[in-house]
Amino acid sequence: MHALDVIVKKRNGEKLTRKEIDFFVQGVTRDEIADYQAAAFLMAVYFRGMDDDETLWLTQSMLHSGDVVDLSCIPGIKTDKHSTGGVGDKTTLIIGPIVAACGVPVAKMSGRGLGHTGGTIDKLEAIPGFRTNLTAQEFTENVRDIGLAVAGQTGNLAPADKKFYALRDVTGTIENVSLIAASIMSKKLACGTDAIVLDVKTGSGAFMKTVEQAKALAGKMVEIGRGAGKRVTALITEMDRPLGLAIGNALEVMEAIKVLKGQGPEDLKEVSIELAANMLMLGGKGDLEHCRKLALQAVSNGSAFNKFTQMILRQGGDPAVAEDPSRLPWAPVQAEWRAEKAGYIQSMQAEKLGAASLALGAGRKTKSDSIDPAAGIVLVKTTGDRVEAGEPLAVLHTSDKTRVDAAIEILRDSLLVSDEPAEQRPLILGFV
Amino acid sequence: MHALDVIVKKRNGEKLTRKEIDFFVQGVTRDEIADYQAAAFLMAVYFRGMDDDETLWLTQSMLHSGDVVDLSCIPGIKTDKHSTGGVGDKTTLIIGPIVAACGVPVAKMSGRGLGHTGGTIDKLEAIPGFRTNLTAQEFTENVRDIGLAVAGQTGNLAPADKKFYALRDVTGTIENVSLIAASIMSKKLACGTDAIVLDVKTGSGAFMKTVEQAKALAGKMVEIGRGAGKRVTALITEMDRPLGLAIGNALEVMEAIKVLKGQGPEDLKEVSIELAANMLMLGGKGDLEHCRKLALQAVSNGSAFNKFTQMILRQGGDPAVAEDPSRLPWAPVQAEWRAEKAGYIQSMQAEKLGAASLALGAGRKTKSDSIDPAAGIVLVKTTGDRVEAGEPLAVLHTSDKTRVDAAIEILRDSLLVSDEPAEQRPLILGFV
Repeated sequence: MHALDVIVKKRNGEKLTRKEIDFFVQGVTRDEIADYQAAAFLMAVYFRGMDDDETLWLTQSMLHSGDVVDLSCIPGIKTDKHSTGGVGDKTTLIIGPIVAACGVPVAKMSGRGLGHTGGTIDKLEAIPGFRTNLTAQEFTENVRDIGLAVAGQTGNLAPADKKFYALRDVTGTIENVSLIAASIMSKKLACGTDAIVLDVKTGSGAFMKTVEQAKALAGKMVEIGRGAGKRVTALITEMDRPLGLAIGNALEVMEAIKVLKGQGPEDLKEVSIELAANMLMLGGKGDLEHCRKLALQAVSNGSAFNKFTQMILRQGGDPAVAEDPSRLPWAPVQAEWRAEKAGYIQSMQAEKLGAASLALGAGRKTKSDSIDPAAGIVLVKTTGDRVEAGEPLAVLHTSDKTRVDAAIEILRDSLLVSDEPAEQRPLILGFV
Repeated sequence: MHALDVIVKKRNGEKLTRKEIDFFVQGVTRDEIADYQAAAFLMAVYFRGMDDDETLWLTQSMLHSGDVVDLSCIPGIKTDKHSTGGVGDKTTLIIGPIVAACGVPVAKMSGRGLGHTGGTIDKLEAIPGFRTNLTAQEFTENVRDIGLAVAGQTGNLAPADKKFYALRDVTGTIENVSLIAASIMSKKLACGTDAIVLDVKTGSGAFMKTVEQAKALAGKMVEIGRGAGKRVTALITEMDRPLGLAIGNALEVMEAIKVLKGQGPEDLKEVSIELAANMLMLGGKGDLEHCRKLALQAVSNGSAFNKFTQMILRQGGDPAVAEDPSRLPWAPVQAEWRAEKAGYIQSMQAEKLGAASLALGAGRKTKSDSIDPAAGIVLVKTTGDRVEAGEPLAVLHTSDKTRVDAAIEILRDSLLVSDEPAEQRPLILGFV
């Protein structure tokens, strides 16, 4: 078999065999196939696509290019959640404790963020002392003992995906639904859980701009997961507006704590409960309606909050943070962004709120950038709200006051105010 | 400017600017843009194509990546010819002397062949002592003094094309009309002649399988050449069947000599006279009809033959070869391929005749293979002929008799015989 033949076959729009895909993935992983051939292959896939079989084979080939975490020593249905990423998305910090508190083990490996704010790992690291670099043994033990662990990736998971992703990033071949689905699912499957809930965000602040694109990606991922013998379900959720009011690492931890205490913004609660209920359902806790009740109960009876505290303690963090969020990093500079005219907020584009947050220091532009855990934005008003001229719209948090003007300029650009009340689409836009 | 942005722009089907193309070509040539980015770019061009402007800019950018031969010291309109390559195509050996004999200077740089037989350079090197590695000075002096030089490439011509071509060869991105046209024309324009006749072959033995494909390529190349201020014309010529009866390096030299002596197969004569007449026309010798007469005259009065002898002498070869072709390499083994049944030859696929010739040792599979100059095939019958069972169809020449069976097996596969006389399409299928 020759790499060139596989490239030409895909280029010509023919269906590849499992053997051809294995040959190509293994060749790239072992550096036996040159990067320029991999790049040409990826661009051919960009144009020709892959059908469901090919996408599953690509996923499985990348999955088996490295270690697969073994959680079989833990009883029960181990669950995981993956979000395709959005602005203000701190649901993992809320859902993990809820689901674990209901008796369904949650084993989540997560990444660092590139872009508007950090990823889940960066958010957790805003908690003083919190360790995310667990060993494989620590990770498994935590899931076994307290039903919950959220950590950075341990071991050598899906190295083929790392190589392909790095190439896609610099060759304009990110935006293909099969390549995205295979990349996400190869990593998720390597984490060894039995059930996965996918949260596919759609809107201006998400990678998938339309509901149709989001559904296509969700469909592919569910297909792959089920093809690999896993319990998988996907939700399509709103990301034209940010989720909740807080954007920024420590600020989002504070907001997550509020929700775990039964407070916090309604939209964030609704999405978190829905995701948690789906995880509980896959975890065998009954139908969705019943699972929603279990999730709400875990919040109202304090068990989810206690589980969160337990996780912090177990992963070396300061557990007092949960009761006293003022122990979290706090930015020395706060500045208000005020409305210039009265009206109803038609939109506050999530993408631009993310960019403003990045400008304040909450995210990283390149992998080597460091994050300011205290930086970010807390919205006072959000899409749909009535605002009067001069009223505050948001509070900006930063360690560097010279960054405020640039951030406000981006924020102004995010805002659309009009005389008519705004219609809003629902938070949950679909299920797959 | 970033390489990734250029890739994504082309991937999205947008038109690139001259600056973007220059940036990319220069970046690749200087190793400032990675091979994997160049490969992704080439695959994007494969799918999206380039318009006439982009193709001209790509050509000019590759042309100016290296030296351009300066022939300005030679008076007159210097001409060149390029064939896209076919089986049994020895026209350069015939046309060069004819055109030069009519007083129009011919300056041709040519390549070695990869595939069924050698290229023009390999064919000429079958003449004992013949030197094709002329210095730039020798090349120019020969054109000035005797009006004719055929040599391997001198100097550092279009190095960007070399890099792009090497990548295209291993990434499945050869078959795009803009990339092919830009590759050919950047090299041709770097040779510094004033006029170029393009011979675009079409049919089973050619790269362009259909007349439409050939016309598209011819159109692009003529457009580029004229855009660069050159006199350019293109002929679309038949390559379902080989040109002439001889395939193989020394065997083709013998056949070319025959044509220069007024003998040889009619098809080869016709195409050669037509190409030569077009070169003479571009060289300012009058209209096409008049130029055909000049070309025929140069053969009948012996001046073309004399020019051929003069070129051999000038380039260090044994001039007695022209009068006595038995001085050329001659294979120790000859074997006959005989007809199994009677009928009319409907086709003898050029592509397979080429493959059989390669099997006998006449070509090279990889750049480092050596060629057997004496090996090849001489057809006794050709497409359209009547044949009786047991009659010889061809004589195979090789230095290694173990190769004969494999070659005959390929030949059998090339042959279609039926009871009805075959219709043949004309040799000249179009002009651009």
